[in-house]
Amino acid sequence: MAPLRTQWTRLIRFVAEETSRVHIGQPIDAALDVGLASRQGRPIKVLEIAGSALDPSAQVTKSVLTVKTLLSPLSREQVKIVRCLGLNYKDHATEIKVAKPAFPIVFLKPVSTLIGPNAPITIPRAAQPPKEHQPDYEVELVIVIGRAAKDVSEADALDYVLGYTGANDVSFRKHQMAVSQWTFSKGFDNTNPFGPCLVSNNAIPDPQVIPLKAVVNGETLQDGNTADQIFNVRQTIAWLSQGTTLEPGTIILTGTPAGVGFVRQPPVYLKHGDEVAVSLGNGIGTLVNRVVEERGSAKL
Amino acid sequence: MAPLRTQWTRLIRFVAEETSRVHIGQPIDAALDVGLASRQGRPIKVLEIAGSALDPSAQVTKSVLTVKTLLSPLSREQVKIVRCLGLNYKDHATEIKVAKPAFPIVFLKPVSTLIGPNAPITIPRAAQPPKEHQPDYEVELVIVIGRAAKDVSEADALDYVLGYTGANDVSFRKHQMAVSQWTFSKGFDNTNPFGPCLVSNNAIPDPQVIPLKAVVNGETLQDGNTADQIFNVRQTIAWLSQGTTLEPGTIILTGTPAGVGFVRQPPVYLKHGDEVAVSLGNGIGTLVNRVVEERGSAKL
Repeated sequence: MAPLRTQWTRLIRFVAEETSRVHIGQPIDAALDVGLASRQGRPIKVLEIAGSALDPSAQVTKSVLTVKTLLSPLSREQVKIVRCLGLNYKDHATEIKVAKPAFPIVFLKPVSTLIGPNAPITIPRAAQPPKEHQPDYEVELVIVIGRAAKDVSEADALDYVLGYTGANDVSFRKHQMAVSQWTFSKGFDNTNPFGPCLVSNNAIPDPQVIPLKAVVNGETLQDGNTADQIFNVRQTIAWLSQGTTLEPGTIILTGTPAGVGFVRQPPVYLKHGDEVAVSLGNGIGTLVNRVVEERGSAKL
Repeated sequence: MAPLRTQWTRLIRFVAEETSRVHIGQPIDAALDVGLASRQGRPIKVLEIAGSALDPSAQVTKSVLTVKTLLSPLSREQVKIVRCLGLNYKDHATEIKVAKPAFPIVFLKPVSTLIGPNAPITIPRAAQPPKEHQPDYEVELVIVIGRAAKDVSEADALDYVLGYTGANDVSFRKHQMAVSQWTFSKGFDNTNPFGPCLVSNNAIPDPQVIPLKAVVNGETLQDGNTADQIFNVRQTIAWLSQGTTLEPGTIILTGTPAGVGFVRQPPVYLKHGDEVAVSLGNGIGTLVNRVVEERGSAKL
Protein backbone atom coordinates (compact mmCIF):
# COMPACT_ATOMS: atom_id res chain seq x y z
CA MET A 1 0.00 0.00 0.00
CA ALA A 2 1.29 3.46 -0.91
CA PRO A 3 0.40 6.68 0.92
CA LEU A 4 -2.60 8.63 -0.34
CA ARG A 5 -1.52 11.35 -2.78
CA THR A 6 -3.68 14.42 -3.20
CA GLN A 7 -3.48 17.18 -5.81
CA TRP A 8 -3.97 19.76 -3.08
CA THR A 9 -1.67 20.36 -0.14
CA ARG A 10 -3.90 22.63 2.02
CA LEU A 11 -7.65 22.38 1.82
CA ILE A 12 -10.23 24.77 3.29
CA ARG A 13 -14.02 24.74 3.12
CA PHE A 14 -15.77 28.08 2.84
CA VAL A 15 -18.71 30.08 1.59
CA ALA A 16 -17.44 32.13 -1.37
CA GLU A 17 -18.22 35.81 -1.88
CA GLU A 18 -18.79 35.19 -5.56
CA THR A 19 -21.47 32.52 -5.24
CA SER A 20 -22.62 32.49 -1.57
CA ARG A 21 -22.31 28.70 -1.80
CA VAL A 22 -20.01 26.25 0.01
CA HIS A 23 -16.81 25.38 -1.86
CA ILE A 24 -13.52 23.71 -1.10
CA GLY A 25 -10.24 25.14 -2.26
CA GLN A 26 -6.57 25.77 -1.68
CA PRO A 27 -5.39 29.21 -0.49
CA ILE A 28 -3.20 30.86 -3.16
CA ASP A 29 -0.81 32.26 -0.54
CA ALA A 30 0.82 29.08 0.79
CA ALA A 31 2.24 30.92 3.82
CA LEU A 32 -1.04 32.56 4.91
CA ASP A 33 -2.63 31.59 8.23
CA VAL A 34 -6.19 31.54 6.87
CA GLY A 35 -7.71 31.32 10.33
CA LEU A 36 -6.05 34.53 11.50
CA ALA A 37 -6.71 36.28 8.20
CA SER A 38 -10.37 35.31 8.35
CA ARG A 39 -10.65 36.54 11.93
CA GLN A 40 -9.10 39.86 10.95
CA GLY A 41 -11.34 40.25 7.91
CA ARG A 42 -8.45 40.15 5.44
CA PRO A 43 -9.30 38.84 1.95
CA ILE A 44 -8.33 35.21 1.28
CA LYS A 45 -7.97 34.19 -2.36
CA VAL A 46 -8.43 30.51 -3.12
CA LEU A 47 -8.05 28.16 -6.07
CA GLU A 48 -11.14 26.00 -6.14
CA ILE A 49 -10.89 22.22 -5.65
CA ALA A 50 -13.44 20.28 -7.72
CA GLY A 51 -14.71 17.20 -5.94
CA SER A 52 -15.09 16.02 -2.35
CA ALA A 53 -12.56 16.69 0.38
CA LEU A 54 -12.56 12.95 1.08
CA ASP A 55 -11.77 12.04 -2.55
CA PRO A 56 -7.98 12.09 -2.97
CA SER A 57 -8.39 12.51 -6.73
CA ALA A 58 -10.16 15.89 -6.30
CA GLN A 59 -8.44 18.41 -8.59
CA VAL A 60 -7.28 21.97 -7.96
CA THR A 61 -8.77 24.12 -10.75
CA LYS A 62 -7.80 27.57 -12.05
CA SER A 63 -11.01 29.12 -10.72
CA VAL A 64 -10.22 31.89 -8.20
CA LEU A 65 -12.68 32.53 -5.36
CA THR A 66 -12.66 34.79 -2.30
CA VAL A 67 -13.61 33.52 1.16
CA LYS A 68 -16.73 35.07 2.67
CA THR A 69 -17.18 32.64 5.60
CA LEU A 70 -14.51 30.14 6.60
CA LEU A 71 -15.88 26.73 7.67
CA SER A 72 -14.42 23.56 9.13
CA PRO A 73 -12.56 21.51 6.47
CA LEU A 74 -15.18 18.73 6.61
CA SER A 75 -18.91 19.13 7.15
CA ARG A 76 -20.60 17.31 10.04
CA GLU A 77 -22.12 15.00 7.43
CA GLN A 78 -18.65 14.09 6.12
CA VAL A 79 -17.26 13.34 9.57
CA LYS A 80 -18.02 9.65 10.10
CA ILE A 81 -17.02 9.54 13.77
CA VAL A 82 -14.91 11.58 16.22
CA ARG A 83 -12.38 9.37 18.00
CA CYS A 84 -10.21 10.91 20.72
CA LEU A 85 -7.17 10.10 22.81
CA GLY A 86 -6.82 11.36 26.35
CA LEU A 87 -3.62 11.81 28.34
CA ASN A 88 -1.34 11.54 25.32
CA TYR A 89 1.42 14.10 26.06
CA LYS A 90 4.21 13.45 28.54
CA ASP A 91 4.20 17.05 29.82
CA HIS A 92 0.41 16.96 30.32
CA ALA A 93 0.56 13.64 32.24
CA THR A 94 3.26 15.23 34.41
CA GLU A 95 1.29 18.42 35.12
CA ILE A 96 -1.80 16.51 36.24
CA LYS A 97 0.39 14.09 38.24
CA VAL A 98 -0.68 10.80 36.65
CA ALA A 99 1.51 8.02 35.30
CA LYS A 100 2.01 7.69 31.55
CA PRO A 101 -0.73 5.31 30.38
CA ALA A 102 0.37 1.84 29.23
CA PHE A 103 -2.23 1.83 26.44
CA PRO A 104 -3.97 4.61 24.51
CA ILE A 105 -6.98 6.01 26.39
CA VAL A 106 -9.80 6.21 23.87
CA PHE A 107 -13.15 7.99 23.96
CA LEU A 108 -15.66 9.28 21.42
CA LYS A 109 -17.41 12.62 20.93
CA PRO A 110 -20.70 13.26 19.12
CA VAL A 111 -20.36 14.88 15.68
CA SER A 112 -22.77 17.53 16.99
CA THR A 113 -19.91 19.00 19.06
CA LEU A 114 -18.12 20.18 15.90
CA ILE A 115 -18.01 23.82 14.82
CA GLY A 116 -15.84 25.78 12.42
CA PRO A 117 -13.47 28.75 12.69
CA ASN A 118 -15.00 31.93 14.21
CA ALA A 119 -18.17 30.10 15.29
CA PRO A 120 -19.11 30.53 18.96
CA ILE A 121 -18.07 27.93 21.52
CA THR A 122 -21.39 27.45 23.31
CA ILE A 123 -21.52 27.01 27.07
CA PRO A 124 -24.87 25.27 27.55
CA ARG A 125 -27.42 26.56 30.03
CA ALA A 126 -27.04 23.33 31.97
CA ALA A 127 -23.34 24.03 32.50
CA GLN A 128 -23.15 27.72 33.48
CA PRO A 129 -22.47 29.56 36.71
CA PRO A 130 -23.55 29.45 39.46
CA LYS A 131 -23.10 25.74 38.85
CA GLU A 132 -19.53 26.48 37.69
CA HIS A 133 -18.91 23.67 35.29
CA GLN A 134 -15.41 24.90 34.53
CA PRO A 135 -15.07 24.92 30.73
CA ASP A 136 -11.42 24.49 29.70
CA TYR A 137 -9.46 24.65 26.40
CA GLU A 138 -7.33 21.86 24.87
CA VAL A 139 -5.38 22.33 21.61
CA GLU A 140 -5.03 19.07 19.66
CA LEU A 141 -3.65 17.68 16.41
CA VAL A 142 -6.38 15.94 14.39
CA ILE A 143 -5.75 13.02 12.04
CA VAL A 144 -8.20 12.71 9.12
CA ILE A 145 -8.50 9.14 7.79
CA GLY A 146 -8.85 8.90 4.01
CA ARG A 147 -8.90 5.16 3.35
CA ALA A 148 -10.60 2.38 5.34
CA ALA A 149 -8.14 1.03 7.92
CA LYS A 150 -8.57 -2.21 9.89
CA ASP A 151 -5.83 -4.16 11.69
CA VAL A 152 -3.10 -2.00 10.16
CA SER A 153 0.48 -2.10 11.37
CA GLU A 154 2.38 0.89 12.70
CA ALA A 155 4.66 0.65 9.66
CA ASP A 156 1.71 1.06 7.26
CA ALA A 157 -0.43 3.38 9.39
CA LEU A 158 0.35 6.67 7.63
CA ASP A 159 -0.79 5.21 4.29
CA TYR A 160 -4.39 5.61 5.52
CA VAL A 161 -4.09 9.29 6.42
CA LEU A 162 -5.67 11.93 4.19
CA GLY A 163 -4.23 14.80 6.18
CA TYR A 164 -4.08 16.73 9.42
CA THR A 165 -5.94 19.62 11.00
CA GLY A 166 -6.44 21.16 14.45
CA ALA A 167 -9.09 21.19 17.17
CA ASN A 168 -9.99 22.68 20.51
CA ASP A 169 -11.35 19.83 22.66
CA VAL A 170 -13.27 22.08 25.08
CA SER A 171 -13.85 20.12 28.29
CA PHE A 172 -16.18 20.84 31.21
CA ARG A 173 -14.00 19.84 34.17
CA LYS A 174 -16.67 19.66 36.84
CA HIS A 175 -18.53 16.99 34.86
CA GLN A 176 -15.27 15.32 33.86
CA MET A 177 -14.16 14.91 37.47
CA ALA A 178 -17.61 13.81 38.68
CA VAL A 179 -17.73 10.47 36.80
CA SER A 180 -15.27 7.98 35.34
CA GLN A 181 -16.23 8.42 31.68
CA TRP A 182 -15.33 11.65 29.86
CA THR A 183 -17.79 11.71 26.97
CA PHE A 184 -20.54 13.69 28.68
CA SER A 185 -18.17 16.46 29.80
CA LYS A 186 -16.76 16.80 26.29
CA GLY A 187 -19.94 16.15 24.35
CA PHE A 188 -22.14 19.27 24.47
CA ASP A 189 -23.45 20.71 21.19
CA ASN A 190 -21.18 23.26 19.45
CA THR A 191 -18.23 23.05 21.80
CA ASN A 192 -15.45 21.61 19.59
CA PRO A 193 -13.91 23.92 16.96
CA PHE A 194 -11.92 22.13 14.27
CA GLY A 195 -9.85 23.35 11.34
CA PRO A 196 -8.92 25.66 9.75
CA CYS A 197 -6.75 23.97 7.06
CA LEU A 198 -6.66 20.29 6.26
CA VAL A 199 -2.99 19.80 5.31
CA SER A 200 -2.41 16.72 3.19
CA ASN A 201 -0.41 13.69 4.19
CA ASN A 202 2.02 14.49 1.32
CA ALA A 203 2.78 17.88 2.84
CA ILE A 204 3.35 16.50 6.36
CA PRO A 205 5.51 13.38 5.97
CA ASP A 206 6.36 13.47 9.70
CA PRO A 207 3.47 14.39 12.02
CA GLN A 208 5.69 14.28 15.12
CA VAL A 209 7.27 17.71 14.64
CA ILE A 210 4.17 19.95 14.72
CA PRO A 211 4.12 22.86 17.20
CA LEU A 212 0.74 23.60 18.78
CA LYS A 213 -0.45 26.24 21.20
CA ALA A 214 -3.53 27.72 22.86
CA VAL A 215 -3.95 31.45 23.48
CA VAL A 216 -6.78 32.81 25.65
CA ASN A 217 -7.52 36.55 25.43
CA GLY A 218 -4.02 37.09 23.99
CA GLU A 219 -2.13 35.09 26.59
CA THR A 220 -0.31 31.92 25.50
CA LEU A 221 -1.33 29.14 27.91
CA GLN A 222 -0.32 25.99 26.00
CA ASP A 223 2.85 25.80 23.91
CA GLY A 224 3.79 22.24 22.96
CA ASN A 225 4.92 20.00 20.14
CA THR A 226 3.62 16.66 18.85
CA ALA A 227 7.15 15.31 19.46
CA ASP A 228 6.01 14.99 23.09
CA GLN A 229 3.15 12.57 22.32
CA ILE A 230 3.14 9.35 24.33
CA PHE A 231 1.50 7.37 21.49
CA ASN A 232 2.53 8.80 18.15
CA VAL A 233 0.29 9.01 15.09
CA ARG A 234 1.43 5.63 13.73
CA GLN A 235 0.81 3.90 17.05
CA THR A 236 -2.54 5.62 17.51
CA ILE A 237 -3.90 4.52 14.12
CA ALA A 238 -2.62 0.96 14.54
CA TRP A 239 -4.13 0.73 18.02
CA LEU A 240 -7.53 2.15 17.05
CA SER A 241 -7.75 -0.09 13.96
CA GLN A 242 -7.63 -3.31 15.99
CA GLY A 243 -10.82 -5.18 15.17
CA THR A 244 -12.28 -1.82 14.17
CA THR A 245 -12.73 -0.29 10.74
CA LEU A 246 -11.65 3.34 10.62
CA GLU A 247 -13.76 4.58 7.72
CA PRO A 248 -12.78 7.53 5.51
CA GLY A 249 -14.04 10.62 7.31
CA THR A 250 -12.97 9.31 10.71
CA ILE A 251 -11.26 12.13 12.61
CA ILE A 252 -8.94 11.39 15.50
CA LEU A 253 -8.12 13.99 18.17
CA THR A 254 -4.72 13.00 19.50
CA GLY A 255 -4.62 14.60 22.96
CA THR A 256 -3.37 17.88 24.37
CA PRO A 257 -0.01 19.14 25.72
CA ALA A 258 0.61 20.80 29.10
CA GLY A 259 -0.88 24.14 30.09
CA VAL A 260 -4.59 23.42 30.42
CA GLY A 261 -6.63 25.72 32.62
CA PHE A 262 -7.74 23.49 35.46
CA VAL A 263 -4.21 22.76 36.74
CA ARG A 264 -3.11 26.42 36.72
CA GLN A 265 -2.78 28.41 39.95
CA PRO A 266 -5.26 30.00 40.06
CA PRO A 267 -7.29 27.87 37.59
CA VAL A 268 -8.26 29.47 34.27
CA TYR A 269 -11.77 28.64 33.05
CA LEU A 270 -13.48 29.93 29.92
CA LYS A 271 -16.27 32.46 30.35
CA HIS A 272 -18.68 34.45 28.22
CA GLY A 273 -16.79 36.79 25.90
CA ASP A 274 -13.39 35.10 26.06
CA GLU A 275 -11.51 34.64 22.80
CA VAL A 276 -9.68 31.32 22.44
CA ALA A 277 -7.14 30.76 19.67
CA VAL A 278 -5.57 27.35 19.04
CA SER A 279 -2.72 27.31 16.52
CA LEU A 280 -0.92 24.43 14.86
CA GLY A 281 2.14 24.69 12.63
CA ASN A 282 3.02 23.09 9.29
CA GLY A 283 0.31 25.08 7.49
CA ILE A 284 -2.67 24.03 9.61
CA GLY A 285 -3.14 27.51 11.09
CA THR A 286 -5.20 29.16 13.80
CA LEU A 287 -8.76 28.55 14.98
CA VAL A 288 -10.22 31.59 16.73
CA ASN A 289 -13.50 31.21 18.59
CA ARG A 290 -15.36 33.38 21.05
CA VAL A 291 -17.03 31.82 24.10
CA VAL A 292 -20.77 32.44 24.36
CA GLU A 293 -23.14 31.37 27.11
CA GLU A 294 -26.55 30.18 25.96
CA ARG A 295 -29.23 32.61 27.13
CA GLY A 296 -32.27 31.71 29.20
CA SER A 297 -32.43 29.10 31.89
CA ALA A 298 -32.51 25.41 31.11
CA LYS A 299 -35.86 23.76 31.56
CA LEU A 300 -34.28 21.14 33.80
CA MET B 1 -45.84 18.34 23.88
CA ALA B 2 -47.69 15.03 23.55
CA PRO B 3 -46.08 11.58 23.30
CA LEU B 4 -45.28 10.26 19.83
CA ARG B 5 -48.11 8.06 18.53
CA THR B 6 -47.35 5.39 15.96
CA GLN B 7 -49.73 3.24 13.90
CA TRP B 8 -47.62 0.20 14.67
CA THR B 9 -46.95 -1.27 18.09
CA ARG B 10 -44.10 -3.71 17.25
CA LEU B 11 -41.79 -3.05 14.34
CA ILE B 12 -39.27 -5.42 12.78
CA ARG B 13 -36.92 -4.97 9.81
CA PHE B 14 -36.37 -7.97 7.58
CA VAL B 15 -35.60 -9.31 4.14
CA ALA B 16 -38.86 -10.79 2.82
CA GLU B 17 -39.13 -14.17 1.11
CA GLU B 18 -41.47 -12.71 -1.47
CA THR B 19 -39.22 -9.89 -2.69
CA SER B 20 -35.72 -10.56 -1.30
CA ARG B 21 -35.68 -6.88 -0.36
CA VAL B 22 -35.56 -5.14 3.02
CA HIS B 23 -38.95 -4.19 4.49
CA ILE B 24 -40.33 -3.09 7.81
CA GLY B 25 -43.48 -4.55 9.26
CA GLN B 26 -45.49 -5.68 12.26
CA PRO B 27 -45.70 -9.39 13.14
CA ILE B 28 -49.29 -10.64 12.76
CA ASP B 29 -49.01 -12.80 15.88
CA ALA B 30 -48.74 -10.19 18.60
CA ALA B 31 -47.56 -12.76 21.14
CA LEU B 32 -44.77 -14.27 18.98
CA ASP B 33 -41.13 -13.89 20.05
CA VAL B 34 -39.85 -13.19 16.55
CA GLY B 35 -36.22 -13.57 17.58
CA LEU B 36 -36.73 -17.12 18.85
CA ALA B 37 -39.01 -18.02 15.93
CA SER B 38 -36.41 -16.73 13.48
CA ARG B 39 -33.64 -18.70 15.20
CA GLN B 40 -35.74 -21.86 15.04
CA GLY B 41 -36.64 -21.35 11.37
CA ARG B 42 -40.35 -20.99 12.06
CA PRO B 43 -42.30 -18.86 9.56
CA ILE B 44 -43.07 -15.30 10.66
CA LYS B 45 -45.95 -13.54 8.91
CA VAL B 46 -45.85 -9.78 8.91
CA LEU B 47 -48.07 -6.89 7.89
CA GLU B 48 -45.91 -4.44 5.99
CA ILE B 49 -45.32 -0.92 7.30
CA ALA B 50 -45.04 1.67 4.53
CA GLY B 51 -42.54 4.44 5.35
CA SER B 52 -39.48 4.81 7.52
CA ALA B 53 -39.13 3.30 10.98
CA LEU B 54 -38.22 6.78 12.22
CA ASP B 55 -41.36 8.38 10.78
CA PRO B 56 -44.15 8.04 13.37
CA SER B 57 -46.76 8.48 10.64
CA ALA B 58 -45.64 5.30 8.84
CA GLN B 59 -48.74 3.17 8.17
CA VAL B 60 -49.37 -0.54 8.66
CA THR B 61 -50.73 -1.87 5.35
CA LYS B 62 -52.70 -5.02 4.53
CA SER B 63 -49.78 -6.49 2.57
CA VAL B 64 -48.65 -9.80 4.12
CA LEU B 65 -44.99 -10.80 3.87
CA THR B 66 -42.93 -13.66 5.29
CA VAL B 67 -39.58 -13.09 6.98
CA LYS B 68 -36.57 -14.60 5.21
CA THR B 69 -33.83 -12.83 7.21
CA LEU B 70 -34.56 -10.91 10.39
CA LEU B 71 -32.49 -7.69 10.77
CA SER B 72 -32.01 -5.08 13.48
CA PRO B 73 -35.01 -2.70 13.69
CA LEU B 74 -32.93 0.24 12.40
CA SER B 75 -30.15 0.11 9.82
CA ARG B 76 -26.70 1.42 10.73
CA GLU B 77 -27.44 4.39 8.48
CA GLN B 78 -30.57 5.19 10.49
CA VAL B 79 -28.79 5.04 13.83
CA LYS B 80 -27.51 8.55 14.40
CA ILE B 81 -25.38 7.77 17.44
CA VAL B 82 -25.10 5.05 20.10
CA ARG B 83 -25.17 6.53 23.61
CA CYS B 84 -24.69 4.22 26.57
CA LEU B 85 -24.99 4.24 30.34
CA GLY B 86 -22.66 2.22 32.51
CA LEU B 87 -23.29 1.02 36.07
CA ASN B 88 -27.03 1.68 35.98
CA TYR B 89 -28.51 -1.23 37.97
CA LYS B 90 -28.37 -1.43 41.76
CA ASP B 91 -27.77 -5.19 41.75
CA HIS B 92 -24.93 -4.83 39.21
CA ALA B 93 -23.23 -2.05 41.23
CA THR B 94 -23.50 -4.34 44.25
CA GLU B 95 -22.01 -7.38 42.51
CA ILE B 96 -18.98 -5.45 41.29
CA LYS B 97 -18.63 -3.76 44.70
CA VAL B 98 -18.81 -0.11 43.62
CA ALA B 99 -20.96 2.65 45.06
CA LYS B 100 -24.08 3.74 43.19
CA PRO B 101 -22.96 6.61 40.93
CA ALA B 102 -24.18 10.09 41.81
CA PHE B 103 -24.60 10.98 38.12
CA PRO B 104 -25.22 8.87 35.01
CA ILE B 105 -21.99 7.42 33.59
CA VAL B 106 -22.09 8.06 29.85
CA PHE B 107 -20.04 6.65 26.99
CA LEU B 108 -20.47 6.22 23.24
CA LYS B 109 -20.04 3.26 20.88
CA PRO B 110 -19.35 3.36 17.16
CA VAL B 111 -22.33 2.51 14.93
CA SER B 112 -20.04 -0.11 13.33
CA THR B 113 -20.49 -2.26 16.45
CA LEU B 114 -24.15 -2.90 15.60
CA ILE B 115 -25.42 -6.21 14.22
CA GLY B 116 -28.83 -7.81 13.95
CA PRO B 117 -30.46 -10.99 15.25
CA ASN B 118 -28.65 -14.25 14.34
CA ALA B 119 -25.59 -12.38 13.01
CA PRO B 120 -22.25 -13.52 14.46
CA ILE B 121 -20.73 -11.65 17.41
CA THR B 122 -17.18 -11.25 16.10
CA ILE B 123 -14.21 -11.63 18.43
CA PRO B 124 -11.52 -9.70 16.57
CA ARG B 125 -8.11 -11.23 15.88
CA ALA B 126 -6.56 -8.57 18.08
CA ALA B 127 -8.64 -9.74 21.05
CA GLN B 128 -8.37 -13.54 21.01
CA PRO B 129 -6.55 -16.09 23.13
CA PRO B 130 -3.74 -16.49 24.04
CA LYS B 131 -4.14 -12.80 24.84
CA GLU B 132 -7.43 -13.65 26.61
CA HIS B 133 -9.35 -10.45 26.22
CA GLN B 134 -12.33 -11.84 28.11
CA PRO B 135 -15.41 -11.05 26.03
CA ASP B 136 -18.51 -10.78 28.23
CA TYR B 137 -22.29 -10.42 27.64
CA GLU B 138 -24.55 -7.59 28.91
CA VAL B 139 -28.30 -7.54 28.27
CA GLU B 140 -29.67 -3.99 28.05
CA LEU B 141 -32.87 -2.07 27.39
CA VAL B 142 -32.46 0.34 24.46
CA ILE B 143 -34.35 3.62 24.12
CA VAL B 144 -34.93 4.80 20.54
CA ILE B 145 -35.38 8.58 20.28
CA GLY B 146 -37.99 9.68 17.73
CA ARG B 147 -38.06 13.47 18.11
CA ALA B 148 -35.17 15.92 18.66
CA ALA B 149 -34.69 16.40 22.40
CA LYS B 150 -32.59 19.14 24.01
CA ASP B 151 -32.81 20.37 27.62
CA VAL B 152 -35.96 18.34 28.26
CA SER B 153 -37.34 17.80 31.74
CA GLU B 154 -37.88 14.41 33.34
CA ALA B 155 -41.62 15.08 33.24
CA ASP B 156 -41.56 15.51 29.44
CA ALA B 157 -38.81 13.01 28.62
CA LEU B 158 -40.98 10.11 27.41
CA ASP B 159 -42.62 12.37 24.79
CA TYR B 160 -39.40 12.08 22.77
CA VAL B 161 -39.28 8.28 22.73
CA LEU B 162 -40.22 6.39 19.57
CA GLY B 163 -39.92 3.00 21.25
CA TYR B 164 -37.76 0.41 22.96
CA THR B 165 -35.68 -2.55 21.89
CA GLY B 166 -32.91 -4.73 23.31
CA ALA B 167 -29.14 -5.09 22.97
CA ASN B 168 -26.19 -7.17 24.03
CA ASP B 169 -23.40 -4.74 24.96
CA VAL B 170 -20.55 -7.25 24.50
CA SER B 171 -17.55 -5.99 26.49
CA PHE B 172 -13.92 -7.08 26.36
CA ARG B 173 -13.01 -6.98 30.05
CA LYS B 174 -9.23 -7.11 29.73
CA HIS B 175 -9.25 -3.90 27.68
CA GLN B 176 -11.95 -2.39 29.90
CA MET B 177 -9.89 -2.90 33.06
CA ALA B 178 -6.63 -1.74 31.44
CA VAL B 179 -7.62 1.91 30.92
CA SER B 180 -10.06 4.40 32.42
CA GLN B 181 -12.24 4.87 29.34
CA TRP B 182 -14.54 2.02 28.20
CA THR B 183 -15.16 2.86 24.54
CA PHE B 184 -12.28 0.84 23.09
CA SER B 185 -13.24 -2.32 24.97
CA LYS B 186 -16.84 -2.03 23.79
CA GLY B 187 -16.17 -0.66 20.31
CA PHE B 188 -15.00 -3.49 18.05
CA ASP B 189 -16.77 -4.03 14.72
CA ASN B 190 -19.81 -6.35 14.79
CA THR B 191 -19.93 -6.98 18.53
CA ASN B 192 -23.24 -5.38 19.57
CA PRO B 193 -26.46 -7.20 18.61
CA PHE B 194 -29.60 -5.09 18.84
CA GLY B 195 -33.29 -5.83 18.33
CA PRO B 196 -35.32 -7.82 17.54
CA CYS B 197 -38.58 -5.81 17.90
CA LEU B 198 -38.87 -2.07 18.28
CA VAL B 199 -41.90 -1.77 20.57
CA SER B 200 -43.57 1.63 20.38
CA ASN B 201 -43.81 4.13 23.17
CA ASN B 202 -47.64 3.73 23.03
CA ALA B 203 -47.31 0.02 23.81
CA ILE B 204 -44.88 0.54 26.72
CA PRO B 205 -46.26 3.43 28.80
CA ASP B 206 -44.01 2.45 31.73
CA PRO B 207 -40.48 1.33 30.76
CA GLN B 208 -39.54 0.53 34.39
CA VAL B 209 -41.28 -2.84 34.53
CA ILE B 210 -39.46 -4.73 31.76
CA PRO B 211 -37.84 -8.07 32.61
CA LEU B 212 -34.53 -8.79 30.87
CA LYS B 213 -32.19 -11.77 30.89
CA ALA B 214 -29.10 -13.24 29.25
CA VAL B 215 -28.76 -16.94 28.50
CA VAL B 216 -25.42 -18.45 27.42
CA ASN B 217 -25.51 -21.96 25.91
CA GLY B 218 -28.89 -22.51 27.51
CA GLU B 219 -27.95 -21.35 31.00
CA THR B 220 -29.62 -18.21 32.39
CA LEU B 221 -26.86 -15.94 33.72
CA GLN B 222 -28.65 -12.57 33.99
CA ASP B 223 -32.25 -12.26 35.14
CA GLY B 224 -33.19 -8.69 36.04
CA ASN B 225 -35.84 -6.03 35.65
CA THR B 226 -35.63 -2.37 34.61
CA ALA B 227 -37.33 -1.56 37.95
CA ASP B 228 -33.81 -1.93 39.39
CA GLN B 229 -32.30 0.89 37.28
CA ILE B 230 -30.44 3.59 39.23
CA PHE B 231 -31.32 6.29 36.67
CA ASN B 232 -34.67 5.52 35.07
CA VAL B 233 -35.54 6.22 31.44
CA ARG B 234 -36.95 9.68 32.20
CA GLN B 235 -33.87 10.70 34.17
CA THR B 236 -31.53 9.27 31.54
CA ILE B 237 -33.10 11.22 28.67
CA ALA B 238 -33.25 14.45 30.68
CA TRP B 239 -29.61 14.07 31.73
CA LEU B 240 -28.29 13.25 28.25
CA SER B 241 -30.24 16.12 26.68
CA GLN B 242 -28.47 18.80 28.73
CA GLY B 243 -26.83 21.11 26.22
CA THR B 244 -26.98 18.22 23.76
CA THR B 245 -29.45 17.53 20.96
CA LEU B 246 -30.61 13.91 20.92
CA GLU B 247 -31.56 13.57 17.26
CA PRO B 248 -34.17 11.09 16.00
CA GLY B 249 -32.30 7.83 15.46
CA THR B 250 -30.30 8.24 18.66
CA ILE B 251 -30.26 4.92 20.50
CA ILE B 252 -29.49 4.77 24.20
CA LEU B 253 -28.28 1.59 25.89
CA THR B 254 -29.37 1.89 29.51
CA GLY B 255 -26.99 -0.42 31.37
CA THR B 256 -27.06 -4.04 32.47
CA PRO B 257 -28.34 -5.89 35.56
CA ALA B 258 -26.36 -8.32 37.75
CA GLY B 259 -24.99 -11.62 36.52
CA VAL B 260 -22.27 -10.60 34.05
CA GLY B 261 -19.50 -13.12 33.37
CA PHE B 262 -16.44 -11.45 34.80
CA VAL B 263 -17.67 -11.38 38.42
CA ARG B 264 -18.77 -15.06 38.44
CA GLN B 265 -16.75 -17.72 40.25
CA PRO B 266 -15.21 -19.03 38.08
CA PRO B 267 -15.56 -16.22 35.49
CA VAL B 268 -17.61 -16.93 32.35
CA TYR B 269 -16.18 -15.50 29.12
CA LEU B 270 -17.56 -15.91 25.62
CA LYS B 271 -15.70 -18.18 23.23
CA HIS B 272 -15.95 -19.39 19.66
CA GLY B 273 -19.16 -21.34 19.14
CA ASP B 274 -21.07 -20.09 22.18
CA GLU B 275 -24.71 -19.14 21.68
CA VAL B 276 -25.82 -16.02 23.57
CA ALA B 277 -29.50 -15.11 23.89
CA VAL B 278 -30.64 -11.85 25.44
CA SER B 279 -34.39 -11.54 26.05
CA LEU B 280 -36.51 -8.58 27.02
CA GLY B 281 -40.19 -8.66 27.90
CA ASN B 282 -43.14 -6.46 26.84
CA GLY B 283 -42.95 -7.73 23.25
CA ILE B 284 -39.29 -6.87 22.55
CA GLY B 285 -38.24 -10.52 22.33
CA THR B 286 -35.02 -12.49 22.09
CA LEU B 287 -31.76 -11.79 20.25
CA VAL B 288 -29.81 -14.97 19.57
CA ASN B 289 -26.24 -14.66 18.32
CA ARG B 290 -23.40 -17.12 17.96
CA VAL B 291 -19.86 -16.10 18.93
CA VAL B 292 -17.30 -16.37 16.13
CA GLU B 293 -13.58 -15.68 16.28
CA GLU B 294 -12.11 -13.95 13.25
CA ARG B 295 -9.72 -16.27 11.42
CA GLY B 296 -6.08 -15.56 10.60
CA SER B 297 -3.71 -13.56 12.73
CA ALA B 298 -3.88 -9.81 13.01
CA LYS B 299 -1.20 -7.95 11.11
CA LEU B 300 -0.27 -6.04 14.25
